[in-house]
Amino acid sequence: MKIVIAPDSFKGSISAFEASLAIEKGIKRSFPTAETITVPLADGGEGTMDTLVTTTNGVKVAVTVTGPLGNPVEAFYGILGDGKTCVIEMASASGLHLVPEQEQNPLITTTYGMGELIQHALEKGFRSFILALGGSATNDGGAGMLQALGMNILDKKKQKIGFGGGELSRVDQISLEHFDSRINESDFIIASDVENPLVGKNGASFVFGPQKGATEEIGRILDQNLVHWADKIEELTGVKLHKMPGAGAAGGIGGAFQAFFPSVTEKGAEVVMDYTKLRERLAGADLLITGEGQVDFQTAFGKTPMRAAETAKDMGIPTIIIAGSVGRDIESLYPYGVVSVHSIMTRPMTLTEAMRSASELLEHTSEQVCRTFFMKL
Amino acid sequence: MKIVIAPDSFKGSISAFEASLAIEKGIKRSFPTAETITVPLADGGEGTMDTLVTTTNGVKVAVTVTGPLGNPVEAFYGILGDGKTCVIEMASASGLHLVPEQEQNPLITTTYGMGELIQHALEKGFRSFILALGGSATNDGGAGMLQALGMNILDKKKQKIGFGGGELSRVDQISLEHFDSRINESDFIIASDVENPLVGKNGASFVFGPQKGATEEIGRILDQNLVHWADKIEELTGVKLHKMPGAGAAGGIGGAFQAFFPSVTEKGAEVVMDYTKLRERLAGADLLITGEGQVDFQTAFGKTPMRAAETAKDMGIPTIIIAGSVGRDIESLYPYGVVSVHSIMTRPMTLTEAMRSASELLEHTSEQVCRTFFMKL
Repeated sequence: MKIVIAPDSFKGSISAFEASLAIEKGIKRSFPTAETITVPLADGGEGTMDTLVTTTNGVKVAVTVTGPLGNPVEAFYGILGDGKTCVIEMASASGLHLVPEQEQNPLITTTYGMGELIQHALEKGFRSFILALGGSATNDGGAGMLQALGMNILDKKKQKIGFGGGELSRVDQISLEHFDSRINESDFIIASDVENPLVGKNGASFVFGPQKGATEEIGRILDQNLVHWADKIEELTGVKLHKMPGAGAAGGIGGAFQAFFPSVTEKGAEVVMDYTKLRERLAGADLLITGEGQVDFQTAFGKTPMRAAETAKDMGIPTIIIAGSVGRDIESLYPYGVVSVHSIMTRPMTLTEAMRSASELLEHTSEQVCRTFFMKL
Repeated sequence: MKIVIAPDSFKGSISAFEASLAIEKGIKRSFPTAETITVPLADGGEGTMDTLVTTTNGVKVAVTVTGPLGNPVEAFYGILGDGKTCVIEMASASGLHLVPEQEQNPLITTTYGMGELIQHALEKGFRSFILALGGSATNDGGAGMLQALGMNILDKKKQKIGFGGGELSRVDQISLEHFDSRINESDFIIASDVENPLVGKNGASFVFGPQKGATEEIGRILDQNLVHWADKIEELTGVKLHKMPGAGAAGGIGGAFQAFFPSVTEKGAEVVMDYTKLRERLAGADLLITGEGQVDFQTAFGKTPMRAAETAKDMGIPTIIIAGSVGRDIESLYPYGVVSVHSIMTRPMTLTEAMRSASELLEHTSEQVCRTFFMKL
């Protein structure tokens, strides 16, 4: 009996890694000799680095960098088990979770720390990167990151502009003279599902600005500034980012990669599937167990669990989903190879209780579900 | 594919019958051609009559009788599908649920209505009875019932005693002269799991009195009165009920049956198993689904679901339990042929929400569980 355990995180409660261990523990209680393979998943957002590091037996490197508000923060990047590929999560250096709610303001938050993480890895000799863009606090068009990597972004008085999306209106001249030449010796996979353009009503400022603390008025300023920033980049490179799909990712840093980095953009789920080698690991499995905090096809079922289920289905392997909350329209998941969906709840309880006991509940439910699936008395 | 659906009630929420329909509906959603057989269960307590009537395609007869407080209540007895056997639930005529909480007092509550139900059935020509003793409000030693059936129970002034356990101290003489002679032409199966003696510290008054509203002081009076009552019965019949096992059932009515009725006592679950023909219905089944409101081996797992699981196990048929709440030590159920135990909860919710949505949740969970059990993609 071989079971592949590939959950996403149970948001607000346990990580994908913790979830995979809980499921494994539950299975082993009733099937101690079962072959279990844990492949914690992620969708390119938070948790992507941990997932890729864990599943490839890689390591994490801690670096003190400039946080989104300019103060020092401890951030991490991962080196995959191949010893060559770095995975950097934007949220680690420039994430919204690093900014107290009352200080969230994309006029001032910077991606400088993200640039420092890249530079640290370049310094160590790495030239192959996966960049996961989810969870940023910023709307600076990637200007901070570019500055950290040596780009000179100057105002009319030849002074370097400061941090944050509010400074972009001052940009007069961009110089690549001191921009880190190792960037062009490297390759970058941008893990991002965002297809928004840089500017306009579907652009970074109006669509994602509000969740980063931008008022409507600030959103308008940020958008104008990104237009100016894109004009300046076009002058320099000929690349017209304004309406380019994906340029609006993570406060416009997507555009910076498109203009200045040898990069390809891939869906987060695809990147995770590739690097965790889920398909290879599924070979010969009797069952795939996946899951996440909330499953409801219409609203919240994660991209990665669904892709994992489809992959399993292609290989003739059934999928069972275990979730914190199970919503409506579960039958919409059946065509993706999903046999059934189970909640970890064992009795009436509050969300707080459920979140506190998530590992224990998940372990219990996994045991029961596997017994139901594998036992015929 | 054949599935036998034999749940107990989900107490406080849905009856065994409603539960069996919800489970069937869930199964049919994914397996419309499955052969499903619903056998709602009961343990000899409340719901036993409905279960036996439903599973045998019998009928229910409504009769207005004397309630536990002396006021008229509408009660029911069942006639099984054989057209010959009556099932009478003590709770229907003399149940605690018929007495407002502040009026609960076994000094005054009577079993007279229970006697009236029996008499009504005798009048209709029935001579074969199943009496389910659970849920009574009374502690009158069955005196009220005996009076309803013509027994003269007189005080020193040759006056009939009144209703309730408080009157038993006045008993001077018991006369069988007008006691319904059809009783002795009948046979009675007493469905009861209570093995307590009539009197003493393990007797009816001290053990079950408190849950019927008896204070400690009232409990002592009730016990003394039952001693006196048993003395008088012994004088008349030679039968010594005082320490007889089972005589303490349902406020001492168990003793009345032992002394005056041609009766045998059987465990409630056994009676239900026999009359619902569960074993015959299980023949050729692939799965037994049972369930109840709360499953926790240490505390509350019903006797009937467990007996059903054992019966299925004997026949090589696996059992799955679906419950409202699933407690600890579920693994203690595995030796009874239980493959797995699943809660109907789909997300964090209150007990009230869960009870209100029990049918819908049970339907949903049954579908998912059956998919897990039967589908291999």
